[in-house]
Amino acid sequence: MARRLLLRAVDIHKLTLPTSARLCTHAPPAPLTLREQSNGIRRITLNDPRKRNALSLAMLQSLRQDILVDANSEDLRVIIISANGPVFSSGHDLKELTSLRGRGHHTQVFQACSEVMTLIQDIPVPVIAMVNGVATAAGCQLVASCDIAMATEKSTFATPGVNVGLFCSTPAVAIGRAVPKKVAMAMLFTGTPISAHDALLHGLVSKVVPEEHLEEETLAVAQRVCQASRPVVALGKATFHRQMAQGRDAAYATASQVMVDNLALRDGQEGIRAFIEKRKPVWSHAAEKAHD
Amino acid sequence: MARRLLLRAVDIHKLTLPTSARLCTHAPPAPLTLREQSNGIRRITLNDPRKRNALSLAMLQSLRQDILVDANSEDLRVIIISANGPVFSSGHDLKELTSLRGRGHHTQVFQACSEVMTLIQDIPVPVIAMVNGVATAAGCQLVASCDIAMATEKSTFATPGVNVGLFCSTPAVAIGRAVPKKVAMAMLFTGTPISAHDALLHGLVSKVVPEEHLEEETLAVAQRVCQASRPVVALGKATFHRQMAQGRDAAYATASQVMVDNLALRDGQEGIRAFIEKRKPVWSHAAEKAHD
Amino acid sequence: MARRLLLRAVDIHKLTLPTSARLCTHAPPAPLTLREQSNGIRRITLNDPRKRNALSLAMLQSLRQDILVDANSEDLRVIIISANGPVFSSGHDLKELTSLRGRGHHTQVFQACSEVMTLIQDIPVPVIAMVNGVATAAGCQLVASCDIAMATEKSTFATPGVNVGLFCSTPAVAIGRAVPKKVAMAMLFTGTPISAHDALLHGLVSKVVPEEHLEEETLAVAQRVCQASRPVVALGKATFHRQMAQGRDAAYATASQVMVDNLALRDGQEGIRAFIEKRKPVWSHAAEKAHD
Repeated sequence: MARRLLLRAVDIHKLTLPTSARLCTHAPPAPLTLREQSNGIRRITLNDPRKRNALSLAMLQSLRQDILVDANSEDLRVIIISANGPVFSSGHDLKELTSLRGRGHHTQVFQACSEVMTLIQDIPVPVIAMVNGVATAAGCQLVASCDIAMATEKSTFATPGVNVGLFCSTPAVAIGRAVPKKVAMAMLFTGTPISAHDALLHGLVSKVVPEEHLEEETLAVAQRVCQASRPVVALGKATFHRQMAQGRDAAYATASQVMVDNLALRDGQEGIRAFIEKRKPVWSHAAEKAHD
Repeated sequence: MARRLLLRAVDIHKLTLPTSARLCTHAPPAPLTLREQSNGIRRITLNDPRKRNALSLAMLQSLRQDILVDANSEDLRVIIISANGPVFSSGHDLKELTSLRGRGHHTQVFQACSEVMTLIQDIPVPVIAMVNGVATAAGCQLVASCDIAMATEKSTFATPGVNVGLFCSTPAVAIGRAVPKKVAMAMLFTGTPISAHDALLHGLVSKVVPEEHLEEETLAVAQRVCQASRPVVALGKATFHRQMAQGRDAAYATASQVMVDNLALRDGQEGIRAFIEKRKPVWSHAAEKAHD
Repeated sequence: MARRLLLRAVDIHKLTLPTSARLCTHAPPAPLTLREQSNGIRRITLNDPRKRNALSLAMLQSLRQDILVDANSEDLRVIIISANGPVFSSGHDLKELTSLRGRGHHTQVFQACSEVMTLIQDIPVPVIAMVNGVATAAGCQLVASCDIAMATEKSTFATPGVNVGLFCSTPAVAIGRAVPKKVAMAMLFTGTPISAHDALLHGLVSKVVPEEHLEEETLAVAQRVCQASRPVVALGKATFHRQMAQGRDAAYATASQVMVDNLALRDGQEGIRAFIEKRKPVWSHAAEKAHD
């Protein structure tokens, strides 16, 4: 564990050999997450399929790091989180939650988890979950926490913690805010999975596509996000979460002020001008104001 | 513009010539909104199809006036908002949002918009959106703000502001409170329209009907509302929005008190008596109490 | 039956003969609710079909008592509420709401009703509504208040109070928190029933099944709940409602703490161990902590 974290700290896991190398004796462990970025799209892949991409403390820390690194760079415009193997993520690593590990360790695990889930909503770029398989417990929470979720028809979603004596109370924070209350409660009390179709009906995922189109359709959504101005998207995302936590009138006061601020951005004015002049806008992606 | 506003002040635009007169030279400009009322049903029609029924400041002021005038009259029981032309409304008039118009003007536009949207929820009669076509940005916000929305199959709903550098943050206040969060975010971040069918699934509209039945079905809903007692509906509408902003126990305290008050209304008692006597109730539509 | 009823101090009406006896002259009235319990499943049946299972004050008190009695016993693990006759429940008994009964009585009725509805959410075991027929007004509120709701295809749901001059403001507290706002408002303003299918789409019920499978499928869900550890379910249920009333960050703080507490329960540790050892867990159902 210490060694893996050391590797993560300087972020050299990309330098390791391809996954096939894992078969060799003495090969270094495969990284828990893979990260690559091009054309504004950062792809983060959960890469522990043998452990069903369990959100172990190390996995959470690796994921956190992959989200946070250069999060404020103009080069980053959208993040896609996907997974290797047939399971998107099975949630916490239960081996980390035995009494042997102790209350202090348990606390650390859930803090790390909540931190990643809220980070996804708090960073300035949209985060898309790309799901092809089973997402359970904190794995389902991860999907619920993303801004957009694309899923294949075979994907399923469940909060089965109740079956192993650990009610999915933290996943319920995200899932209870994503779907109607009774949908969430049926999932939580019975542990029964819901289909991708039902997840779509109830707002847990944004779109369901055939497996062979998942990659293509997810990239299309990511590219659409990339076509927008970065500071405009960042302002919009932050405002959405902020006003949704307010009462209606306060929300309108917040959002109206933000609209005026958005218009004062260089890209706000460029967008309006381009629309009026019937041409494509040329974004500066600069966060400073255009005037005043 | 000055002249139109002058006309609006005394609300005599209904006295103008029919729309065909617009073809004549020197004809006065067509009114931005049309208003007619009969049998308790007020119909307000957005009437600027050439500008895709943009919610310009003048349009918002005209709409506000059409909603507010005699809003407390017993003759008014329900409002239907519809639109002329293939676009229900395309949202703000971007020409009013250039830097030339200045921050003060921008502020005024968004204040006027929020005022109309909250007014729709705060007036004592239900407001029905009747949508046959595209509703985008603040146009989509208008649909989301109405109490009930009827839409044709061909109608679509979008918040594409992000594409012109102006994130739909104020529309998000209404839309984020009408549909599941992830549905709202996918609309906001991608600008991609959703179909009437999806709008129905997610609660943005109340019913989807074939185009040839839109008028008839919307009027049927309006007439159903008219069959009820005005003060009972007014009390119910105000209470709904009030209790929804409270925690569960406070909401029950509010609503339980309101039920007792409702029973004390003359029409509250008439309704109960009529039910017991197996006859149709005869409403007084009077807001005063029946007893105590 | 007689013996069980003796236990219920104020509820002597349970001492009556079976329903068939009602046909005899001078037979005592049938009990308003029936209660039986076996294998952890308590079944409560609304039993006033001639009055369409109206939630009269006596019915509400009987229902409250049936929910509350021994609610903290380890023997109780889940409650199913169903109804005899073609109407699940038609809501309040309007005869109790005439001016003759007076404001004090009205207040008492709505307090008793709110108490039952919130009790359902506040007791430590999940409550399942099993609906086969019409559920209107406070009857619909009862379905909305349950944690899980199973319904047959022929079931319908409505809030028609507006038609009798008594807007369904208290039902709106539960229904407005269960379905999207516009769905609730259309029901409230028009009184028009929605189908079981639409109720499922919008989250008012959890599952729709053919009539001949209702009993079997509801019992299957109840049995699933019974397979879990009682204190784990109790902690999960209480936490769900608590955190849903909080903002996101406070909710995560609450739920993270609860996860750690859950792990400290004896059954929390037993579940984790059983999972790791690939065996079925053996629950103690004891609420005390396993360690510390």
